Amino acid sequence: MRSIEWRDGKVRFLDQSQLPAKEIYIETDDETVVARAIKSLALRGAPLIGIAAAYGFVLAFDRLKSNDVKSVTACIERTTHLFVSTRPTAVNLFWAVNRMRNLAIDSAGKSLEGIHANLLAEAMAIHMEDEEKCRRIGQLGAEILPNAASVLTHCNTGSLATGGDGTAQNILKTAWEQKKLKHVYMDETRPLLQGARLTAWELQQLQIPSTLITDSTAAFLMQQGKVNAIVVGADRVTLNGDVANKVGTYGLAVLAKHHGVPFYVAAPTTTIDFEMVTGSEIPIEQRSGSEVSKIGNYQIAPEGVDVYSPAFDVTPNELITAIVTEKGVLRKPYREALEALKKQDMSKLIRKLSSGREGR
Amino acid sequence: MRSIEWRDGKVRFLDQSQLPAKEIYIETDDETVVARAIKSLALRGAPLIGIAAAYGFVLAFDRLKSNDVKSVTACIERTTHLFVSTRPTAVNLFWAVNRMRNLAIDSAGKSLEGIHANLLAEAMAIHMEDEEKCRRIGQLGAEILPNAASVLTHCNTGSLATGGDGTAQNILKTAWEQKKLKHVYMDETRPLLQGARLTAWELQQLQIPSTLITDSTAAFLMQQGKVNAIVVGADRVTLNGDVANKVGTYGLAVLAKHHGVPFYVAAPTTTIDFEMVTGSEIPIEQRSGSEVSKIGNYQIAPEGVDVYSPAFDVTPNELITAIVTEKGVLRKPYREALEALKKQDMSKLIRKLSSGREGR
Repeated sequence: MRSIEWRDGKVRFLDQSQLPAKEIYIETDDETVVARAIKSLALRGAPLIGIAAAYGFVLAFDRLKSNDVKSVTACIERTTHLFVSTRPTAVNLFWAVNRMRNLAIDSAGKSLEGIHANLLAEAMAIHMEDEEKCRRIGQLGAEILPNAASVLTHCNTGSLATGGDGTAQNILKTAWEQKKLKHVYMDETRPLLQGARLTAWELQQLQIPSTLITDSTAAFLMQQGKVNAIVVGADRVTLNGDVANKVGTYGLAVLAKHHGVPFYVAAPTTTIDFEMVTGSEIPIEQRSGSEVSKIGNYQIAPEGVDVYSPAFDVTPNELITAIVTEKGVLRKPYREALEALKKQDMSKLIRKLSSGREGR
Repeated sequence: MRSIEWRDGKVRFLDQSQLPAKEIYIETDDETVVARAIKSLALRGAPLIGIAAAYGFVLAFDRLKSNDVKSVTACIERTTHLFVSTRPTAVNLFWAVNRMRNLAIDSAGKSLEGIHANLLAEAMAIHMEDEEKCRRIGQLGAEILPNAASVLTHCNTGSLATGGDGTAQNILKTAWEQKKLKHVYMDETRPLLQGARLTAWELQQLQIPSTLITDSTAAFLMQQGKVNAIVVGADRVTLNGDVANKVGTYGLAVLAKHHGVPFYVAAPTTTIDFEMVTGSEIPIEQRSGSEVSKIGNYQIAPEGVDVYSPAFDVTPNELITAIVTEKGVLRKPYREALEALKKQDMSKLIRKLSSGREGR
């Protein structure tokens, strides 16, 4: 099972909104179908929506009839707008769109086939790189977990959420393979129940011993000493180490501090927003109230109820024990560690730009 | 709308498991129907299940054919067992059963009509007393709320949960009538969604401005400074001031401490277990996993998932700013305040017993 792949000129992806009841794959050559799937959370998970947007770019250019500058520019703008307007919080999406956009600009003057080949190679590179990042995060994270780890996790960060075996969840999978993991507790993660629907399903398939709890059972579990680490994913990490992630994450971090439980965030560097200094600047997506007042077609709350439903919250850096990236495990002070990563990133970019100049 | 009442020799109650979709009343002369309703949470709320059990006692004795000691004793034992085996955590149930049981024992030798009249009067007294307790709790609690209070509450503690206008919720209602209350945020309260189904419905009818959130949005709300008090109910208060209440309450108390938000518990003295010293001794009811893995008939989690679903958790006294009872607002050290209440209770009992002796 792959959550997304390129197959015969089309994008094929699993409709995650139907899981675990139905395993339905959608195959499309229409980038607007991909964008709608991101918006409706049929495609979700910060790394995965970046990959999906990259493939979406390829689809948009496949339908292009002319390689003249005007057509190419219009296609770039239209596709960029299409994807950046889907979801505001996860930065991977913007990162991937930017990468595809830059490549498309660089490809100006090439034949349509050339542009297509370049874009497809780039999207596949983004996908493959994410797979490798997941692998590294799994290894680095498993190293820092306590022995006989009994871990609480939130939302879904597995193969469904990424191009590989997951971020936070791949730490669990790797630790399980290394016989370091004893048990996983997963929050059901209201309102869209990614923990109950997706993580429970994935851990069942991986045959990792796991127990589902309601989100507000987490505190009681910690009080009883049943959790010795919390591992979660991230949708955006700012330069000071603040982390936006699925709503509920911040509360878990406060509870972890109160109970002396280490709190780990797993995030590929594509989730880091080097241009944003603190978490207070992160735009927080608001979801429709009906996702709370209804479950499926089942009306829970009375009609007309007012609902506040932010999809994410922001955990301040001081509550985070470590941030596990594919480039290493970051510790406090995060600003320093992240500035160093930013410099690496910049020097790579400079090297790339100068080698490009030399090549011309 | 009354959540329970005695009408023409029957108990009539609202089936709360159907709310807010359907407003269905059940009328029965069968105490086992009442017991089943308590077990299934058609009848719920610590004070209300005490009242329901008291009426249940009346029904059981209504069907008694003989007033000989053996029949009466058997009926007492059968009915006691029937109700104490419904739900283990809320102490009001045991308190009410004990009161009815003692009265039935005291009524030995009376005619069947006499026993019936005594029991009905006692059940109605329990009901009326609870109404008055709610009123006092509302007044005392509203006094200590901050002005322009923006209050977060959990589960349901309104007229549905009690014989009157509620405990924690009546503090909100009273403060609203006094123009001290600005807004109520209510946790949906998974798994059985009493906040979304019942509190949302009641506050809508009371026209109190209120907003529904998922349980794990509470932390983010507090981080934003949108909550300046938390008020919850209780299912059992032990002698040291520890409080068992709907699962999720303990997490809210930790979050309240972290954010400097006062955390109030509203509980009639019938919720105090003077015989139990600390919260660690409270039996915590475990609910069926299917209440988490399904919502209505809608299967959320994959089949075969392991679920941990305690109905309650225990909040240690040090996290509680005050406990509002009908006899006054208790503050730390709770042990002292509760021992004083216990003495009052004992001296009342002694007075009653000695006046009983004098009367003979």
